[in-house]
Amino acid sequence: MQHMGVDEAARFIRKDPFAANLGIEFILIEKGHAISRMTLGEEHKNFMGMIHGGAIFSLADATFGAAANSGGTRSMAIHVSIDYLAPPGDTNYLQADVRETARAGRGGHYQMEVRNDPGDLVAVCHGWAYHTSRPLKG
Amino acid sequence: MQHMGVDEAARFIRKDPFAANLGIEFILIEKGHAISRMTLGEEHKNFMGMIHGGAIFSLADATFGAAANSGGTRSMAIHVSIDYLAPPGDTNYLQADVRETARAGRGGHYQMEVRNDPGDLVAVCHGWAYHTSRPLKG
Amino acid sequence: MQHMGVDEAARFIRKDPFAANLGIEFILIEKGHAISRMTLGEEHKNFMGMIHGGAIFSLADATFGAAANSGGTRSMAIHVSIDYLAPPGDTNYLQADVRETARAGRGGHYQMEVRNDPGDLVAVCHGWAYHTSRPLKG
Amino acid sequence: MQHMGVDEAARFIRKDPFAANLGIEFILIEKGHAISRMTLGEEHKNFMGMIHGGAIFSLADATFGAAANSGGTRSMAIHVSIDYLAPPGDTNYLQADVRETARAGRGGHYQMEVRNDPGDLVAVCHGWAYHTSRPLKG
Repeated sequence: MQHMGVDEAARFIRKDPFAANLGIEFILIEKGHAISRMTLGEEHKNFMGMIHGGAIFSLADATFGAAANSGGTRSMAIHVSIDYLAPPGDTNYLQADVRETARAGRGGHYQMEVRNDPGDLVAVCHGWAYHTSRPLKG
Repeated sequence: MQHMGVDEAARFIRKDPFAANLGIEFILIEKGHAISRMTLGEEHKNFMGMIHGGAIFSLADATFGAAANSGGTRSMAIHVSIDYLAPPGDTNYLQADVRETARAGRGGHYQMEVRNDPGDLVAVCHGWAYHTSRPLKG
Repeated sequence: MQHMGVDEAARFIRKDPFAANLGIEFILIEKGHAISRMTLGEEHKNFMGMIHGGAIFSLADATFGAAANSGGTRSMAIHVSIDYLAPPGDTNYLQADVRETARAGRGGHYQMEVRNDPGDLVAVCHGWAYHTSRPLKG
Repeated sequence: MQHMGVDEAARFIRKDPFAANLGIEFILIEKGHAISRMTLGEEHKNFMGMIHGGAIFSLADATFGAAANSGGTRSMAIHVSIDYLAPPGDTNYLQADVRETARAGRGGHYQMEVRNDPGDLVAVCHGWAYHTSRPLKG
């Protein structure tokens, strides 16, 4: 059996209902690397009127999922940490950039950066995915 | 000036647009402790048809925000980590329970558990909030 | 080939030069669970005269290694986080208790607690080990 | 009262008994940045003959402490996470490089890299320190 290529994998990944509900758009999906953007609205805010930490994390995590599954086999996040470095400020969108940085057996380590419109760092995340050998279609 | 009490703080916290958008309902908000529930639908799923890690995190994080701000003064999350222990399985909702476990100066440490309908552990999170002295309204 | 039992595994684990150098004594090693104690001296202190964070972590990590390798096959830590909840205070030793809390494929999740002599919580850690199928002797 | 300068702070930091016991040498301490080196021996190994995760963490953490206290006021680590990316391999020493990346109130975020002799990445760490206003001496 042949693994699906990154383009076919990307077609699957782009049909993510949770990401769509949050207005997350996948800009780039290549092997071990993905970039996504979330256009911000009232529905991303917390009760203080600031962008919710869960929204910032969800953007990073959806992009992590794209990078981790880009190889065409199913992978699952087992751990993610997020450090909130600065408030997003006055920005129309947030953008996440995620790269695979290492492999340890079936484990893959990923670094994630979330930046605002001017390009300032808003949050950094680090995560581990567990790579199965099952194809995405499953 | 008087700090607002936990009931007044809870009224603010319950008006969270991001939480509302994800179907998160705050069940209990008391000093340093909160419980929330998220009823699951298609919009919480990822492209594999499983509950998205970002949705699980967002439930925990919204509950963390409720527990951390229950004292009536503004606090901000600086760090959260999540460990995904088991898939949610066949469940109508997920429930998060968050407790403050320690204070270190203006820092507060919180432990979070996310469980499915039968009560099985789905994820654990640990986070730090930075407690300012500004009132929630301010 | 037969896997070694927990008693044989424990004999290996107890010959740890790094743990011995820090005065760490393995009190209990059973399947997926270990308890260790570190008697404190000047060599565990930082330049402020407090117990060094690295010493507290090392006690937890050595105990994590004991719990994760107790099955007789080699495992490697891929991620550990530590939250320092309170200074150890006036105590002769620190004690760590580590339990496996979940398995996800070859990944194992472990919770760790470090307490002082009176039993107060000093730090909590969470980690993931990657379980290989190679025997410890390997 | 005047804060001590970075040179005076560095003199304090270099007298760290735990770091000395592990053979850690502070190479550079400047404002918000430090580099340290640990020459490896039998006492850094675990029962498998590999460099102990606690030794790798301790090098990073001691360097973190140097960077976080370089301003002359006491700071305490509240959280550190470590991701083990690759075994150190055949190397005489490990070197850690730690930089402050952000401030949030009294919280400071630090990124840490540990590399082997050829310069390959062995581990990355991320931590938060709580900065008090008390001078190092006090």
